[in-house]
This record gives sequence, structure tokens and C-alpha cells, in this order.
Amino acid sequence: MKSARGAATTIIRKATPSDVGSILQLIRDLAAYEREPDAVLATEATLHATLFGPTPNAEAIVAELDGQTVGMALFFTNYSTWSGRTGIYLEDLYVMPDARGHGLGKALLARLARLAVSRGCARVEWSVLDWNKTAAGFYKSLGAVAMTDWTVFRLDGDALARLGAAPGA
Amino acid sequence: MKSARGAATTIIRKATPSDVGSILQLIRDLAAYEREPDAVLATEATLHATLFGPTPNAEAIVAELDGQTVGMALFFTNYSTWSGRTGIYLEDLYVMPDARGHGLGKALLARLARLAVSRGCARVEWSVLDWNKTAAGFYKSLGAVAMTDWTVFRLDGDALARLGAAPGA
Repeated sequence: MKSARGAATTIIRKATPSDVGSILQLIRDLAAYEREPDAVLATEATLHATLFGPTPNAEAIVAELDGQTVGMALFFTNYSTWSGRTGIYLEDLYVMPDARGHGLGKALLARLARLAVSRGCARVEWSVLDWNKTAAGFYKSLGAVAMTDWTVFRLDGDALARLGAAPGA
Repeated sequence: MKSARGAATTIIRKATPSDVGSILQLIRDLAAYEREPDAVLATEATLHATLFGPTPNAEAIVAELDGQTVGMALFFTNYSTWSGRTGIYLEDLYVMPDARGHGLGKALLARLARLAVSRGCARVEWSVLDWNKTAAGFYKSLGAVAMTDWTVFRLDGDALARLGAAPGA
């Protein structure tokens, strides 16, 4: 992990079931970084089902640095009515702080871009916290555009249950 | 279509292949309303494949008013690492202007909420143009929350191709 840049061995690869423990830890680390350390309800069991069950809901790729799994990208397929094509939605991207400076974040995104192109997808999208100017600058340097005219709305918890129980629902 | 409120017959139902023409027209109407009339590249063929092909990428429900298809919601399954659960992402929601005032927009959202609850989903999410204050107010009245701390980033077109062709991608 202390290898000098250039001397380090980096690998980007598809995740396997044996990566689930590492992926869960990286999800927890990302949530702590995003100031929501208690937000992670996922477990190894939910991740096994999600990523490797009979009908997976998502996929993951991982980044290795000198044989250690130090980063990951977790994503799923979305769809755009306007383009009429699928896309890749990147739910989580994370590289451990000690492992930064080796280009792993860019390498994970580049792999997703390659996957998107090979699958005929129109685009790759993801969400960024507005205070994270470092991340925003990095993404813009790769050619990504901030969709600043749009806001995501979310219905969950009691409000979701209430609307779902409305007469005629 | 001119029925007085209360006298009109409204139906919310799952879309069938025979709805594809109506759905495409509603997608085009929505794009025009969102000031992007030329943005729709989808065709009846892409919609048939997307909604009713062997591996569908999305689902649709439609709203009928007095036997006419006047609205639709097109959605797909997304996934949240934090909740460890799937969700519903509402890609497009539209009700024709002449058919408004009968509660069809709310009825479409309520059906999605019921679907989300029945499938064990954590939430329903969708994106709203910031200038569309009417829509935002309507969604908030149903209990939805604007995720104002987040911005979606998008990588597409030449930038996507370039990153996907980067060495090591």
C-alpha cells in the first residue's frame, strides 16, 4: 500500500462473491465519508443476493492495489425514454484514502465507460454531494457534465406507505 | 374528454404492447413540454423491445380517461447500497393537458407507491426540472422530498467514448 506511484500494481476487475466483505466495508467507508455513517442497512447477505443472486439488481467492479482490494464501483442498468437506450447508473464509487494517487478512481470510471460503450448504452450517470467540490472537479476533468437544472425527488418511509395505501392506488 | 370531474371514468392499468404508440406520443409530448422537442430518439420498435422484449429494461402503467389513454408512468428498478434494497425510478410521468384535473397524476404515482411497497422497495425517485415549480409543489404535497444537496453528473457522447477508450479502461 506504500508503493511509490508507478511501482504499484493496479488491477481493475469484475467483483466475485468472495469480494462481498470488502465491498460492504467500502460502502460503509463511503457512507462515513459522506457524513452518514449510520445510513448503511446493507449486509453481506443483501449484497450476495443483489450482486450474485439468481436475478441480480446490480453489478460491481473492484480495484486492487498490490493485491489488496482498495476500491469499488457498484452500478446498475437504467433507461432513458428520450434516447430509447439503456445507461449505466453508478450508485457508489469509492477508493480508500491510503490508496489514492494511483489513478484508481479514473480507472474504475474508465472501465464503466468501456462497459457502457460495449453494451450500447447512451451514458453513465451518478450523483455527487454538492459540498464535494473535489469530486465534482475530478468528474468534470473527465468530461462529465453536472445536470444542474434537475433535482431528484424521493418518496420513502411513511409518505411512501401512505400514498401506496391511498384509495385507488 | 370533456366529462365533468366526478362523472369521468378513470382507469390506471399496466401497459400492454398495444399501448406503445400512445406511450411514444406521450413521451414526445412530455419532451416538448420540457422544451426539448427534438430530444426523443425512441421509436415504437425501441419501446417494444424495452418494455415487452425478452429482457425488459423498464415497465409502464397508463391512465385512461373515458376510454382514452391520456397519461403514463414509465419506470425501472434501481438499487440503493445504503438501504440494501431495490427502488423504483420513475423516468417519465405525463398526463395530457386536456385530461388534467381528474387526479390522474396522483393516481399514477399512488399506483407506483403501491407497487414499490408490494415489491419491498425502499423508495420511489424521479427527477424534476428546477423551473417546474408546479410539479415540485405537487410532489411535495404527496410527501416527496427534494434531494437538494445532490447533483447528477452525466458522461455521454464523445466524452464517454474517449474515457471508454482510455488505456487500461
